[in-house]
Amino acid sequence: MPLDLSATSIELTRELCDIESVSGNEKALADEIEQALRRMPHLEVLRDGDLVVARTRLGRARRVVVAGHIDTVPVNGNLPVRFETEGGVDYLWGRGTVDMKPGVAVALKLAAELTAPAVDVTWLFYDHEEVASDLNGLARLARTRPELLAADFAILGEPTGGAVEGGCNGTMRFDVITRGRRAHSARGWMGENAIHKAAPILALLADFQPETIEVDGLAYRENLNAVLIGGGVAGNVIPDECAIHINYRFAPSRTPARAEAAMRALFEPFGEFVLRDLSPGARPGLDDPLAQEFLAAVGREAKPKYGWTDVARFSALGIPAVNFGPGDPSLAHADDERVPLEQITGCEDALRAWLG
Amino acid sequence: MPLDLSATSIELTRELCDIESVSGNEKALADEIEQALRRMPHLEVLRDGDLVVARTRLGRARRVVVAGHIDTVPVNGNLPVRFETEGGVDYLWGRGTVDMKPGVAVALKLAAELTAPAVDVTWLFYDHEEVASDLNGLARLARTRPELLAADFAILGEPTGGAVEGGCNGTMRFDVITRGRRAHSARGWMGENAIHKAAPILALLADFQPETIEVDGLAYRENLNAVLIGGGVAGNVIPDECAIHINYRFAPSRTPARAEAAMRALFEPFGEFVLRDLSPGARPGLDDPLAQEFLAAVGREAKPKYGWTDVARFSALGIPAVNFGPGDPSLAHADDERVPLEQITGCEDALRAWLG
Repeated sequence: MPLDLSATSIELTRELCDIESVSGNEKALADEIEQALRRMPHLEVLRDGDLVVARTRLGRARRVVVAGHIDTVPVNGNLPVRFETEGGVDYLWGRGTVDMKPGVAVALKLAAELTAPAVDVTWLFYDHEEVASDLNGLARLARTRPELLAADFAILGEPTGGAVEGGCNGTMRFDVITRGRRAHSARGWMGENAIHKAAPILALLADFQPETIEVDGLAYRENLNAVLIGGGVAGNVIPDECAIHINYRFAPSRTPARAEAAMRALFEPFGEFVLRDLSPGARPGLDDPLAQEFLAAVGREAKPKYGWTDVARFSALGIPAVNFGPGDPSLAHADDERVPLEQITGCEDALRAWLG
Repeated sequence: MPLDLSATSIELTRELCDIESVSGNEKALADEIEQALRRMPHLEVLRDGDLVVARTRLGRARRVVVAGHIDTVPVNGNLPVRFETEGGVDYLWGRGTVDMKPGVAVALKLAAELTAPAVDVTWLFYDHEEVASDLNGLARLARTRPELLAADFAILGEPTGGAVEGGCNGTMRFDVITRGRRAHSARGWMGENAIHKAAPILALLADFQPETIEVDGLAYRENLNAVLIGGGVAGNVIPDECAIHINYRFAPSRTPARAEAAMRALFEPFGEFVLRDLSPGARPGLDDPLAQEFLAAVGREAKPKYGWTDVARFSALGIPAVNFGPGDPSLAHADDERVPLEQITGCEDALRAWLG
């Protein structure tokens, strides 16, 4: 049975969740979305891989992108989804119910319903968000067909608990590697213990006081954490290498180059510094008039986004962008992710009020 | 080509080294040794797993065990071995040239050659010395066929640089495990970083001042080292566990129980303490008459042994035992281990003089 975009956004969320679409396996869901949207005469529909774009061409003065990724992290006994009630709150429970099938459902429903919105809208449903950055469907489109992303403002339906979250922290991953010299551990004094040399690095991390930095009126809380550590050869050998993999989340006012320089200054005295991954943050861009209108329409104050999201890709294209979607972001990727049903309809109503 | 036990002990060392026998992979070498010894009519040969025993049955008043392990630590680009000369000294270089193929070569050569030694001799070639104690071939024999170890004195051909080394330090391995709470690393403050909690443990290890303790006239130098460390889940998750594997080498005057209590007192304030492995040391036992005769015959003074060796197993069976073998023990397990050729023939000559 094909997707019925006139169903409630709650029912549509359930249907979208039950079409399993773990990253790399989005085709079936992308096919359903494409077919459903192609039945809407007010939309121009394009397909790029497992990404689907549908847009109005009403000649409005301004254009808004509403985007969401259709993939999820791996299923872990949490499909099909189910309705449940706890503490008087009705939820939809299971993989994708937070990250981010309800945001996709709201966008699909409004794409079908709003035949004459106040602004032109580009509805964008994309693949491969939950995996390595170089596979990301939105990044692919920005490289190969950037004209399809042209807009004055963008909304990503990532889970924010119905709040408006602006910008995002940048993220960087690097290794600090200490080196020593192997020897038999019975005569440890003949070697040089690389694991012991990690002591000041871990002490520095444990004592580090991350900053909170205000950017365009929002306070971005940074943080710095060892996420992986490994070292040693065998139970009777003085270790000659220890690697600490560190993740730094930095405020969007820091450029990647400045963030990297700060980390090098901090850690290079203690070991070899190897940069692994570096993505800039996104300034919130909430001083933009369209952003102000959006905030007024949804009746919410903006909050900072901590996690890196694809708003940074719009930011890099010069398009102000915010996150706005149903679901508690701290449950994203959790095996027991679940969304309060009223957040789905709440987001739907707010978006309809603004776009309608 | 089968092993030729009439070759020089140097040539035999080279051949033994080039039959790779990293712990767990001793079979090919044990087969070679067994076949070569079975050709000697004066020896009774037995096989137990990858352990080979060959013994004379001459009805002598006294019996001596000469033992050596045939396994090595992992190869690291250092096989096949090669001859090299440096500073006017001729060496054999590569994995096993110190720990302890030359000791095995000397024993094999003399086992074949000495058809009527002054004492009965049990020649013992065993497996799994370089790994966890519960796999050790000598320990297995002590459990299952202790009568094969019966003797008045034992010599282990572990590297001592041709010196006689008495007793050995005890050794203990344990984990100290720190625990935290997972969270997405974009919101690190929601979690508790287990790797950061390892900082005081590594600082304690880096600052630790090991003791040197005199036992029966010999000075035993202790040491304490982290040998392995591991922790973390993924690049974007605050780690909830970090395990540090620590090796403590303690003087033979400390009982295992006292050594364990000292380590628990030191580390339990920082994490969960899990004992993995604990072997008592061996007091030197050099007051025994056979030990005195042996010292006189080889013309050497005794020194303390730092590394734990299987002399402690003989010590536990009430058999005085010493280490005596070619190779600088401080190069054992080093990737560039190498033995001066004259130490191989020196040990061969000394043992022949005493046994012959």
